[in-house]
Amino acid sequence: MHIKVVHKSVKIKFSKMHGLGNDFIIINAMMQKTFPVTSNIIQNLSNRYTGIGFDQLLLVENSKNVNIDFHYRIFNANGTEVSQCGNGARCFALFVLLKKLTKKRTLYVSTNTTTLILNVLNNGNVCVDMGVPCFKLKNIFGENIIENSLHSIKFVNKIINYDLVSIGNPHCIIYVNNLKKYPVKKIGFYLSTHKIFPEGINVNFVEVLSKNEIALRVYERGVGETLACGSGACASVALGIQQGLLFNEVQVNLLNGILKINWKGGSEKLYMTGPAVHVYDGYFYL
Amino acid sequence: MHIKVVHKSVKIKFSKMHGLGNDFIIINAMMQKTFPVTSNIIQNLSNRYTGIGFDQLLLVENSKNVNIDFHYRIFNANGTEVSQCGNGARCFALFVLLKKLTKKRTLYVSTNTTTLILNVLNNGNVCVDMGVPCFKLKNIFGENIIENSLHSIKFVNKIINYDLVSIGNPHCIIYVNNLKKYPVKKIGFYLSTHKIFPEGINVNFVEVLSKNEIALRVYERGVGETLACGSGACASVALGIQQGLLFNEVQVNLLNGILKINWKGGSEKLYMTGPAVHVYDGYFYL
Repeated sequence: MHIKVVHKSVKIKFSKMHGLGNDFIIINAMMQKTFPVTSNIIQNLSNRYTGIGFDQLLLVENSKNVNIDFHYRIFNANGTEVSQCGNGARCFALFVLLKKLTKKRTLYVSTNTTTLILNVLNNGNVCVDMGVPCFKLKNIFGENIIENSLHSIKFVNKIINYDLVSIGNPHCIIYVNNLKKYPVKKIGFYLSTHKIFPEGINVNFVEVLSKNEIALRVYERGVGETLACGSGACASVALGIQQGLLFNEVQVNLLNGILKINWKGGSEKLYMTGPAVHVYDGYFYL
Repeated sequence: MHIKVVHKSVKIKFSKMHGLGNDFIIINAMMQKTFPVTSNIIQNLSNRYTGIGFDQLLLVENSKNVNIDFHYRIFNANGTEVSQCGNGARCFALFVLLKKLTKKRTLYVSTNTTTLILNVLNNGNVCVDMGVPCFKLKNIFGENIIENSLHSIKFVNKIINYDLVSIGNPHCIIYVNNLKKYPVKKIGFYLSTHKIFPEGINVNFVEVLSKNEIALRVYERGVGETLACGSGACASVALGIQQGLLFNEVQVNLLNGILKINWKGGSEKLYMTGPAVHVYDGYFYL
């Protein structure tokens, strides 16, 4: 008499990590080439009750380019492949060091649309080059956007002013006075799903605390308010620096922790520095 | 130059399992006596973003009673120790077999308030004896409850009739016609937090489909609507059998799967049979 438990044959190892509460599983596909990437499998794994649970899955691959240390692919919980994630990049850098896949502290990595330089600092924090912020709105949002103007929209009886920035993905930024009490979910949903942004937009609510500190809450398109949006922190600070409201080094207070943003302006690259945490290692069978 | 990653010294192994989406981590404390049970540690581990994520943690211990195969302790995600969980009991039985801690298919186990007999079936499902349902309401709810009467309560302009049963924990049962469209969250919250139940109550909404099949949604006290409440399924079927509405063997369709309940009535024990799923194994350092 044996229990009818299906013995699946492929053992897949993974690490669970998070950056400010944005969580990931990372699978080394250089060693485990048999991992089948289907959206159905990723959806099942991402379920927080019946699976492992994560926001994104990172799949580490060898790079074919000799100047690139690692290539990795990024999948959302729903199985769709995406191009970039700042919190994920920090976790990725700590992962390859902890797993002794490299001894380098400065890593050249590629994703399916971009290359990044990741620097692991002595305190374990990771600095990510996030590219050059883009304020040329026609490039991002199409011809209907009025360049360099302050945009506004009516919500019930209020006029809400907003600005637009892209740093890989599009962001709308709204300055507010009392971030804790601001109706982030209502206004975030309204703007994020408004017909003027047919592909949706991430909505950032910024309270400027001083010339080198802001508080930030972000409503991410298709998700809702999240604990930490790395690219939102970058976009918000880039706008503040561009407008002369902020210095070149700014601390961003998110709901679940702190990011530091450095940008010299113009066509310089913007750098984001923050923590990455290894939570546990695990394995499952497919 | 070394990365300042704190190397913690105690390695703790765990398994993640679920019963109808109610999820658990199980730690074998017979082998890992160093696991420190503090509510702070359990809260951190239970966080679904920065930790492992689970509804409950089960800690397996050796029993001091020679007639009992295993003793285990049950902790909610907030760190409080509780007494019983039907979904957890099924996962526990599968865990000790999969981990080869026993070869027995019929297990006598104890928790901090009760003993249970668990039977692992050939198809991997587990049958749990849930004890004798209790309809003596004064024993459960105190002297103010009117025995054997149909209870009713006013909600807005509607009269809602309900019955009360206990099977380890207290349940309120409401028969409805259209379970899918029923305002489970509103009515569930209203009754669950009503002053007539000073310690709260689990509210079960039952649609009788036939004499051997019901559909069930449960609003659990202090939690909200859950995917699967094992004791709610037992309480609901026990009441239906007691009232002559149901046969002795009943299938319960919950939001995330099916449980089978058997009860011969009277002072007989009630049995619940359902699935348990092993998701993955992992380890972390403390």
